[in-house]
Amino acid sequence: MTISHPLAPLLAPNSVAIFGASNDPSRISGRSLRYFREAGYKGGLYPINPTRDTVQGLPAFADIASVPGAVECAVIAVPANLAIEAMEACVVKGVKAVVMFTAGFAEIGAEGRAMQQRITQIAQDSGIRLCGPNCLGLFNMRIGHTPTFSSFLEEGPTPAGPLGMVTQSGAFGTHLLALTARRGIQVGVWLSTGNEADVSVADGISFLADDPETKAIACYVEAIKDGAAFAEAVARARANGKPVIAMKVGGSTIGAAAAASHTASLAGSDAVYDSALRQIGVERAKTPEDLVEIAYACTRGSLPSSRRLAVMTMSGGAGVLMADAAEEEGLDLAPLSEASQKQVIEWVPFAAARNPVDVTAQVLNDPSILDKSFDLLYGPENFQSIVGFFTTWASSPQMAEPLFRAVTGAVGRYPDRYFALSGIATPEMQRRYEAAGVGVFEDPWRAVEAIAAATRCSERLNAPSLPIPEVPGNLPPLPHGRIAEHEAKAILSAAGIPVLDERLATSSAEAAAAGAALGDRLVLKIVSADIPHKTEMGGVMLDVPAAEAGPAYDRMIERIKTRAPRARIDGVLISPMLKGGIEMILGVQNDPVFGPVVMLGLGGIFVEVLKDVTFRIAPFGVEEAHRMIRELRGVGMLEGARGQPPCDLDALAVALCNLSVFVAAKRHEFTSIDINPLLVRPKGQGAVALDALILTADTVTEDDEPTP
Amino acid sequence: MTISHPLAPLLAPNSVAIFGASNDPSRISGRSLRYFREAGYKGGLYPINPTRDTVQGLPAFADIASVPGAVECAVIAVPANLAIEAMEACVVKGVKAVVMFTAGFAEIGAEGRAMQQRITQIAQDSGIRLCGPNCLGLFNMRIGHTPTFSSFLEEGPTPAGPLGMVTQSGAFGTHLLALTARRGIQVGVWLSTGNEADVSVADGISFLADDPETKAIACYVEAIKDGAAFAEAVARARANGKPVIAMKVGGSTIGAAAAASHTASLAGSDAVYDSALRQIGVERAKTPEDLVEIAYACTRGSLPSSRRLAVMTMSGGAGVLMADAAEEEGLDLAPLSEASQKQVIEWVPFAAARNPVDVTAQVLNDPSILDKSFDLLYGPENFQSIVGFFTTWASSPQMAEPLFRAVTGAVGRYPDRYFALSGIATPEMQRRYEAAGVGVFEDPWRAVEAIAAATRCSERLNAPSLPIPEVPGNLPPLPHGRIAEHEAKAILSAAGIPVLDERLATSSAEAAAAGAALGDRLVLKIVSADIPHKTEMGGVMLDVPAAEAGPAYDRMIERIKTRAPRARIDGVLISPMLKGGIEMILGVQNDPVFGPVVMLGLGGIFVEVLKDVTFRIAPFGVEEAHRMIRELRGVGMLEGARGQPPCDLDALAVALCNLSVFVAAKRHEFTSIDINPLLVRPKGQGAVALDALILTADTVTEDDEPTP
Repeated sequence: MTISHPLAPLLAPNSVAIFGASNDPSRISGRSLRYFREAGYKGGLYPINPTRDTVQGLPAFADIASVPGAVECAVIAVPANLAIEAMEACVVKGVKAVVMFTAGFAEIGAEGRAMQQRITQIAQDSGIRLCGPNCLGLFNMRIGHTPTFSSFLEEGPTPAGPLGMVTQSGAFGTHLLALTARRGIQVGVWLSTGNEADVSVADGISFLADDPETKAIACYVEAIKDGAAFAEAVARARANGKPVIAMKVGGSTIGAAAAASHTASLAGSDAVYDSALRQIGVERAKTPEDLVEIAYACTRGSLPSSRRLAVMTMSGGAGVLMADAAEEEGLDLAPLSEASQKQVIEWVPFAAARNPVDVTAQVLNDPSILDKSFDLLYGPENFQSIVGFFTTWASSPQMAEPLFRAVTGAVGRYPDRYFALSGIATPEMQRRYEAAGVGVFEDPWRAVEAIAAATRCSERLNAPSLPIPEVPGNLPPLPHGRIAEHEAKAILSAAGIPVLDERLATSSAEAAAAGAALGDRLVLKIVSADIPHKTEMGGVMLDVPAAEAGPAYDRMIERIKTRAPRARIDGVLISPMLKGGIEMILGVQNDPVFGPVVMLGLGGIFVEVLKDVTFRIAPFGVEEAHRMIRELRGVGMLEGARGQPPCDLDALAVALCNLSVFVAAKRHEFTSIDINPLLVRPKGQGAVALDALILTADTVTEDDEPTP
Repeated sequence: MTISHPLAPLLAPNSVAIFGASNDPSRISGRSLRYFREAGYKGGLYPINPTRDTVQGLPAFADIASVPGAVECAVIAVPANLAIEAMEACVVKGVKAVVMFTAGFAEIGAEGRAMQQRITQIAQDSGIRLCGPNCLGLFNMRIGHTPTFSSFLEEGPTPAGPLGMVTQSGAFGTHLLALTARRGIQVGVWLSTGNEADVSVADGISFLADDPETKAIACYVEAIKDGAAFAEAVARARANGKPVIAMKVGGSTIGAAAAASHTASLAGSDAVYDSALRQIGVERAKTPEDLVEIAYACTRGSLPSSRRLAVMTMSGGAGVLMADAAEEEGLDLAPLSEASQKQVIEWVPFAAARNPVDVTAQVLNDPSILDKSFDLLYGPENFQSIVGFFTTWASSPQMAEPLFRAVTGAVGRYPDRYFALSGIATPEMQRRYEAAGVGVFEDPWRAVEAIAAATRCSERLNAPSLPIPEVPGNLPPLPHGRIAEHEAKAILSAAGIPVLDERLATSSAEAAAAGAALGDRLVLKIVSADIPHKTEMGGVMLDVPAAEAGPAYDRMIERIKTRAPRARIDGVLISPMLKGGIEMILGVQNDPVFGPVVMLGLGGIFVEVLKDVTFRIAPFGVEEAHRMIRELRGVGMLEGARGQPPCDLDALAVALCNLSVFVAAKRHEFTSIDINPLLVRPKGQGAVALDALILTADTVTEDDEPTP
């Protein structure tokens, strides 16, 4: 295997030195070397041990400098106080990559953080790629490269299978290896990243994206450090046809670090990760079992290219159950054509033939029904996937072989189709099915879930990339300090977010003129940097007849002067009063992981009571904005619920897209943006921001909140 | 085992005759007899076979009449056309129970239904309890009673374990037997009910409730036929300290038979079952895996008596994951006291000690840390449950025994506490843990879910029974035909649902007088049986000043006469216009399974867009009504969201309770009831029905709908 990937020296090196390799293969410090030898690593292998001539039968070297010729990768398992010295020796030797098991760095506090900073600096200065510290190392069974002390290899090398795995936790990553192995999935390349001083989960995904023998990538993630790098790595895997499945944990604690502003407090939840992973194109697994099952489903056969699923069963009960599961998972149990149903009934008089197809115990008398049925479903009926429930037939003396021949025969004749078998097979029979590209699931519900996950992965891999708009580099800078509402609107308007035609009046006469120009009914709002809560101070008047704009202006100024005598008043903002449409909340925050993240929610109770919001990393295009809108549970409100006309979803999508481009350009200048509300009017009538708040890094935020 | 339960002749008989028993033990018709003999059944066993003297070594009888002495139970496996004759012979012989495997009854159409009706009648007339037809039979391993041809017993009798299982599908029930056996759970009594001509799932639960050796009951249900009998059986199990876990399938198809009225269309969904099962006290499992895992959790140790859970781990990653799972499942990861945290840090310097407690790999050097930690958590910290993640330590040569000693030692010292071990054990070690009452879960998330399910079951078993109000028998009958709005309100008012003080005016003068009496602002509504859609016809006027009641009356009558010249007008209903409060929708339908079912939803988008509704079987008390309210996703609206005062939840609960009592009394007289809206006013101000619609069986419903 020759890969030109930047991580090749770490994950596929030609030579490896092991600092602190013990002669005792049963000790933790002797494990890695033993694993290398058991796995048949063919490259140069150099134990560094100043106290011995040989280690586990190999010539040992007192230091790395004494190794003849080049060393591409080094394993450092010495105590923390010696690790820096070892790093420095690696630099002198020209080592390209280091795996550092050593603990006692950033995870133990300030002193450790300083030491970690030191080794990170050495790595950066020298160009060494550093995995760890405080990690369990990695393995690449394709070449027998095993710089790890994970107990998973204690019982011998694992076969070089199609799954790649990247994990931040070494201990839990080892547990996942055990779970996948028990499920019959071989992990070919495994990488634990520990403290991620340099090499991250994203780097691992990127390498696996290029590894020709990796078919799918599973990840265990506690915190993504660089959202952009992660997205890029997933895109690379996608371009190479490989699904990325990730379990992201820590949702319950992230929420504890709630931020001040409204948007930030919602975004602090797991919801941002959830939306972002979906946007990036990751299949998120909720539990370890889910991760294993989806990885299992994605390493069998050809992934299903459509949601059309045929359910075949010998038990009516299991058919009902699988139909439930299919509906919940959004799969399409399309009914068979009349002709095909008639055909099935001819073969099996009491069959259910619509879909689910229940071939009953009749198959026990005539197994050829299976072959005919599979051909009917894959052939004229053109189903992309079949889930077949056959319970213990898969292990019964009478039926196991006929069933195996029928299933594997069908996928052999239709190699681009997917088959999941639900049943209980002997371990040996299960391996035979798996080798033929057919997954075996004891639980029929799980089988349908697995097909659904494989279908989602396939859809992602085959969908065209959505265009991402260009971010302009030449926008004028945002003003410093507090940005008044009308200024904020002007800025957003320039960015392509429609705002109302509104006028700042500084006298009763100006107000009257504005009223005449804007027509019919008006909204008046006080403009004063000293009055953040306009409504409570009487600084908002709704539904004012245009003809009364002048007197209304006077009344408001008088009221404010009484209630807030010291407030500096910039004037009164006058705009038309719009009726009709649905109020949305748009927000933006600068997420520490993903950068500017746009939030969308339906105004009122949807956000406040139901937390019905969704997020997207900026920038994104209108298609992505439409997906975002459709993710809202309350989307029905926009589509014309309760006798209302459907809203202008296109205008909403364009506003979201333009906002995302603007905040991507301004990511270093703002803290948060709220457009609350954006009124989405009936179809064809656009969307318009009724209020807006932009906070910059130097805004005093104590009393701020968007006002209606 | 002697049980006096009515199903004892079926499930624990002293003697069994088998019609159609084959001499060939490998044939389906020979299986049941073979199973009896292998299971060591001690009662009388009589093969009925006119063609042989002996069957499988036992004396055979030409007919059941020839059997000497009494026969308590008979197995009928002969073809359908002979089954009735066999039933009749059983009646003559005085048989008490029949298990009928025979298919070809109600499941095949009209002719089969007639035959099934016939055998049902025979059973009813004779008092024979009939299991089936079209079933796979049953087994009771406690006495080796095996009237079944389920392939599950092919490999020999299963041990008489603590789980009871009742299933409507024999084939899927057999699959569940295989799944539970693979998980290490022994099913002592198993019953498949097939077509349920007589014996139902409820009967099975009832028997298992009385069986002293059954610890928990698992069910697979496609359709409950008699909700009240089901509820009674579950209550019996609860009274005897046994959790009932049920998988109910078919949610996706039930919805297809949507009913006409608003309430009915929502109630037609799986949501009614879901609410009803919760109300009855069933732990609902969504998937077969869930069913098996919850049954596993409920047959280990003492069920946890509180939600306080301690998480112990040797991997930080697994700790995070289990904390996520605990939060999602509503378990309480209470932090350890300062003193206990200090104690843990003393034992393990780099431990996380708050909860999760991460004892790190340090335990490898000093396993006594485990004993001390468990004692700390169960003792001074008083946790009811511990989930411990120890990955492959449970099977490692070094750690397996010390870990086993520590865990089983702790549960031995604290026998009323719960312990779930997450790790990978050898099969032998797993059995040892299970024998000690400790469940082993490979997936730590699953372990936390299992504890949560066991905790819910324990809470149900230990909670006091909620009082159910008495249903009065002497209410006046509902009127026939269409019930006008004001009549409906009067009926509901008498039933304890507050309504507005409103007047029916038939002249302008009466309207003016009503206005003067009701005060301030009014609502006027036309009363006419010919105008179902009042609003659209201009038959509703809102916010009318009291002084204008007379002229408003005239305007409305004039408008209606123009628009609907033929409508018979009964008058105009005048009521005060209330402001403030939250509008709820209450509905009642006569559910075919559960009888009158009360629906509750928040008005407006919550019902229409989000389908946020919940249900209860009538009658129920105010505590149950409060539970119902708390199940709404939008309950925050009632608790004072968006700066509104909290609503009068007590008044809402009383209204729900009174409605439930009323409909329980009137179950045979109405089709559906809608109170839309019921305005729930701020706390202390009550709740009031603003509109109501009662449909009786003889109402013409075509154009009906509640109007605002």
